[in-house]
Amino acid sequence: MIIVMRMGATEAEINEVSRRLADLGLRAHPIYGEKRTVIGAVGEGRFPDRESLEALPGVERVIPILEPFKLVNRAVNPAGSIVRVGDVPIGGEEVVIIAGPCAVESWPQLISTARAVKAAGARILRGGAFKPRTSPYSFQGLGKEALELLARARQATGLPVVTEVLSVRQVELVAQYADALQIGARNMQNFELLREVGRQNKPVLLKRGLSATIEEWLMAAEYIASEGNQQIVLVERGIRTYENTTRSTLDVSAVVVARGLTHLPILVDPSHAAGRRDWVAGLGRAGIAAGADGLMIEVHPNPQEALSDGPQALTPEMFAELMRALRPLVLAVGRTLAPAATVPDQGQVTPVAAGALEGLGLSG
Amino acid sequence: MIIVMRMGATEAEINEVSRRLADLGLRAHPIYGEKRTVIGAVGEGRFPDRESLEALPGVERVIPILEPFKLVNRAVNPAGSIVRVGDVPIGGEEVVIIAGPCAVESWPQLISTARAVKAAGARILRGGAFKPRTSPYSFQGLGKEALELLARARQATGLPVVTEVLSVRQVELVAQYADALQIGARNMQNFELLREVGRQNKPVLLKRGLSATIEEWLMAAEYIASEGNQQIVLVERGIRTYENTTRSTLDVSAVVVARGLTHLPILVDPSHAAGRRDWVAGLGRAGIAAGADGLMIEVHPNPQEALSDGPQALTPEMFAELMRALRPLVLAVGRTLAPAATVPDQGQVTPVAAGALEGLGLSG
Amino acid sequence: MIIVMRMGATEAEINEVSRRLADLGLRAHPIYGEKRTVIGAVGEGRFPDRESLEALPGVERVIPILEPFKLVNRAVNPAGSIVRVGDVPIGGEEVVIIAGPCAVESWPQLISTARAVKAAGARILRGGAFKPRTSPYSFQGLGKEALELLARARQATGLPVVTEVLSVRQVELVAQYADALQIGARNMQNFELLREVGRQNKPVLLKRGLSATIEEWLMAAEYIASEGNQQIVLVERGIRTYENTTRSTLDVSAVVVARGLTHLPILVDPSHAAGRRDWVAGLGRAGIAAGADGLMIEVHPNPQEALSDGPQALTPEMFAELMRALRPLVLAVGRTLAPAATVPDQGQVTPVAAGALEGLGLSG
Amino acid sequence: MIIVMRMGATEAEINEVSRRLADLGLRAHPIYGEKRTVIGAVGEGRFPDRESLEALPGVERVIPILEPFKLVNRAVNPAGSIVRVGDVPIGGEEVVIIAGPCAVESWPQLISTARAVKAAGARILRGGAFKPRTSPYSFQGLGKEALELLARARQATGLPVVTEVLSVRQVELVAQYADALQIGARNMQNFELLREVGRQNKPVLLKRGLSATIEEWLMAAEYIASEGNQQIVLVERGIRTYENTTRSTLDVSAVVVARGLTHLPILVDPSHAAGRRDWVAGLGRAGIAAGADGLMIEVHPNPQEALSDGPQALTPEMFAELMRALRPLVLAVGRTLAPAATVPDQGQVTPVAAGALEGLGLSG
Repeated sequence: MIIVMRMGATEAEINEVSRRLADLGLRAHPIYGEKRTVIGAVGEGRFPDRESLEALPGVERVIPILEPFKLVNRAVNPAGSIVRVGDVPIGGEEVVIIAGPCAVESWPQLISTARAVKAAGARILRGGAFKPRTSPYSFQGLGKEALELLARARQATGLPVVTEVLSVRQVELVAQYADALQIGARNMQNFELLREVGRQNKPVLLKRGLSATIEEWLMAAEYIASEGNQQIVLVERGIRTYENTTRSTLDVSAVVVARGLTHLPILVDPSHAAGRRDWVAGLGRAGIAAGADGLMIEVHPNPQEALSDGPQALTPEMFAELMRALRPLVLAVGRTLAPAATVPDQGQVTPVAAGALEGLGLSG
Repeated sequence: MIIVMRMGATEAEINEVSRRLADLGLRAHPIYGEKRTVIGAVGEGRFPDRESLEALPGVERVIPILEPFKLVNRAVNPAGSIVRVGDVPIGGEEVVIIAGPCAVESWPQLISTARAVKAAGARILRGGAFKPRTSPYSFQGLGKEALELLARARQATGLPVVTEVLSVRQVELVAQYADALQIGARNMQNFELLREVGRQNKPVLLKRGLSATIEEWLMAAEYIASEGNQQIVLVERGIRTYENTTRSTLDVSAVVVARGLTHLPILVDPSHAAGRRDWVAGLGRAGIAAGADGLMIEVHPNPQEALSDGPQALTPEMFAELMRALRPLVLAVGRTLAPAATVPDQGQVTPVAAGALEGLGLSG
Repeated sequence: MIIVMRMGATEAEINEVSRRLADLGLRAHPIYGEKRTVIGAVGEGRFPDRESLEALPGVERVIPILEPFKLVNRAVNPAGSIVRVGDVPIGGEEVVIIAGPCAVESWPQLISTARAVKAAGARILRGGAFKPRTSPYSFQGLGKEALELLARARQATGLPVVTEVLSVRQVELVAQYADALQIGARNMQNFELLREVGRQNKPVLLKRGLSATIEEWLMAAEYIASEGNQQIVLVERGIRTYENTTRSTLDVSAVVVARGLTHLPILVDPSHAAGRRDWVAGLGRAGIAAGADGLMIEVHPNPQEALSDGPQALTPEMFAELMRALRPLVLAVGRTLAPAATVPDQGQVTPVAAGALEGLGLSG
Repeated sequence: MIIVMRMGATEAEINEVSRRLADLGLRAHPIYGEKRTVIGAVGEGRFPDRESLEALPGVERVIPILEPFKLVNRAVNPAGSIVRVGDVPIGGEEVVIIAGPCAVESWPQLISTARAVKAAGARILRGGAFKPRTSPYSFQGLGKEALELLARARQATGLPVVTEVLSVRQVELVAQYADALQIGARNMQNFELLREVGRQNKPVLLKRGLSATIEEWLMAAEYIASEGNQQIVLVERGIRTYENTTRSTLDVSAVVVARGLTHLPILVDPSHAAGRRDWVAGLGRAGIAAGADGLMIEVHPNPQEALSDGPQALTPEMFAELMRALRPLVLAVGRTLAPAATVPDQGQVTPVAAGALEGLGLSG
């Protein structure tokens, strides 16, 4: 930590900073320049909040030198961590594709999407049960019914499922059904929610906030980790900039930079960044080339009937085509992609009672 | 709503849009241009989500014409609304100053600040009980103890109190003590929390999110209003831009623009925007000149000992000086400012039991 | 200058940094922390470009401590500088209003605007001769003819005139006519142009670039000053952010912050920031309350016929009303505003030949 | 063009808009909604500036439907254009790598870089002669001497050369030496300069401005094209956002989006976006995967001695490694990359007189 004193700071002010550092078990190393004094703080003591030093008289600014995130720091696991969603490892050699509808709307919509994306090589099914919407008058998701449908789709296809949790009140319920809990961009600094998912034994997909710095994103992950849950996957989904042709600006640099700072796996969500299906494939390719451990892609059997995010949803055909195009790219960056799969057809799905589904959810 | 078709959109695609609009009780008015067709949607039917039309084949984009917020729309109350926090009206002729520490740290810290800001003309006391912090390792607030201290400070000074609520779980508790509930910038799109405070009979101070558009801010207010609580005060506190000399960029335009769109009162928080006490007064003056109904200012008796936001806290002396400087400005824009007050000294405060305080909180 | 070494930097790398600093006449003060070493550079030697040190092996990043601007630094003239445009001092007690049309379109348009704004209290006339337009197909300004009209308007009204210069090739010509040269936002880092106006003996109004930091803005001023011309007035005109309701986001903080960093006067241009006339007055008031030394406002006798920027132009009546509203505000911040003036009516203007006008321009 | 009228707009105001459109040869199609009227403008007449309609009484806003760029519009050449720099085609099947030092510093520095990058597969040599620098006190480039060295390096290696032109005054000189003229980010809206390079018969590399929208970037290209020069290559080099870990935020979406809007080739410059050499390869890979026609990469034989941009320069070894890594990626996206070449060693370069060089430059 470097403390830069204002021009004309007095000896008394400099001494006060040193005294304060000493209280924290740190040693002060003042460097007297021609115009300004700067003080280096060294030691194994407790590092103070930057603000508490900046508030001292005569202090211009405080520059942290050490990264503030600890548990998610790459130094903890330089080789990188693998997080398992169901039986699917994220962060290993395989590039993992998560796909599915923005929102779960009905069983036919969900199961047809699930079968189609599995057939094309997706490894995890996504689908919203509780939807965060800008307007209170928009479709808000099917809630618990959607969770049950997701569990049923998992049983039918074998795909683990991930769905978003919006509130501390939903965490327990969602954790009963889903294989991974998603924290959306708008909740990236909903600290109570972060703590709550940090107390679950389920992997968490943590989307980057619309205007979160990379450091704030990692600190949000640190909140989860500090409660004991280290199964965290970061998801870059675009940031808000002045450019509004696309819905958000996909920040591929964040993948490259975060890779060096944290051991957590990193995915890219090209659908939300693009906001328009024509652009999803290009952004997905860029994400993988930048080093992402996988993609999250919205697919809908009939985008023009979608209750949310229709413009950015791929049709199953477009998704299959994207997967074919990704394969050589994934190999070119030295990784692997799951092969297209055969999926048992719909007739083989055994209807199950809601109670049974909850049980399945718990074991997921 | 205007639907812009892609170049080369077919007659069938245009007809499909018209059919879809008809299903919603709307009439389609196609205009055939040389290169593109656009379709105007008119009527009293249910206006569709923009997305559902954008997902149709042949549609380039959809341009909403009507504002999506209804209850908070200025058209509902062109004269502007007044929201009462305790007995203090916000949105009337008086410019209301809310002041107090970032976080409640102790009784002496709180009561000395409360007395000082009241003496200088503040009308409402602020103080954080639950603090949203970027790092899980930073001071997180005193919680319920702070709520009790706030209620005690209200009793001692007569100032109504406002404090932030971070989670749906805290709403009931905080509402027992505070005269107004604050929704912080990070929670502006925590829709579950918005709904929950929308079910309380307490005024809500809604801070603008760090990267929220004015429309999203008003839609967040609409969430609260749609649950039945229309006692909402908007707070502009700076947005995130590329310029990081200041902590945030105070968007005074938002005050000017939002004034024309909504009947809700609007405050400015210059402390969080500035991030440094030297700049608070200038931004506060700008906010009032832009038309704000009041300011929210952080004051600490000893900023260098503050547990959070010390660098941006004014001392009581600086705050008193700011109030003196604001007075002629407030008059110049045709409004009024509460006079400096005399406050009974600390000896007159009668200690009360926690139980009694809770009762006071309920009636606050 | 602080050099932060990477974790695990070797002794040889640290020594290399020290050696490099010594070459520049600087002393290195290494501070050995538990995890990282940082090196303070002290002395009167030549401070290196930050980049040249950051490129050294083992260096993580370099943090400048001293401000990079010298001639425009507030330390050079703590009392603040006054820049005279014609006989009008900017930066003194008086708040100076510059007004006029976006572009000079005709003699009647210009002179009627000039008379009207003078009558309302404006002190300097603005008007574009060369217009920077996003599209090559838009009106690009009347060029030299407009310069002649501006000189004629000056003669008729006594108002000094300011107009934009777009290219090094125009500098000499424009300097013959105008009392001050304006550098537009798009040219703020057109360094050749900055140098060229730095060689003129005319005041320069330097608009902040759309995405320029405060430091880059002051460095652009430093370019001008370093060529010998210190008659520089800074103009904040809004920055580009994600919020696009307004044309730009007026950054009033920049006025507050720059005031502390530089001795140069600072104006605010609320017209370009707003982009819509309804919002100009509110932003103008905010600018003055923040401490601006004046405003630049677009006025057009008939905005709906304007060849550029019509939506943000005030009518003469709106401008007069704004001036009346500004007066108490200006007094409230302890400054003065020129009184409304009587202007000789149009009949008294003596027509002059173009040649004579050029002569007048030279002496302006 | 759609004209949205304000709520409560009068019939007279609506008629005035229609009359104005008729004057321009356009037909007005009013659509009367429940709350607002919107007017569609149709026809082959001259489309007005958006502003001139927005300034009319009763008009809320004007929404352009047609793209404002014409000559560079993809519709002009749906197959995409190829621009030749020397004998190297950009925009065809081959992914073209341009490499070289930020600034030309000396003959040994330049020629060793040129040989190294050619050997690794680069097809064009870059190097700055005139450098735009934030500070007037930083190294500004060797000017004409650098141009001569570039011409000499071309002769020695066979690589065409590209260098930046900062001012209209330098265009003629630079065009004598360089095979392509580069317009830097800061000059993207230096319209005089755009026009000037538009009058040359040399390809132009047009970097996107730091806060330019995609549309403004294409309009800048339109300026060049409208003067007759259609040999334009767009270069995405990162935009300015709130995230400042990287120097700029590489906007890979811009490659994907612009590809659909314009027939011009598009390159990516990962060096300036990253600002740090560790991140260049990841961003370069992302750019190619997004569909870029090539990359522009800074290489320096000894980055720690570089006079500018050292931190982001690759060493020749790092560059060679990047090229090896790019090869499978380029093939995976269905394109080709030049093979690593053998370059005649330095001894074979024949010294030439300056006059001869100018001649070579002219023929380049």
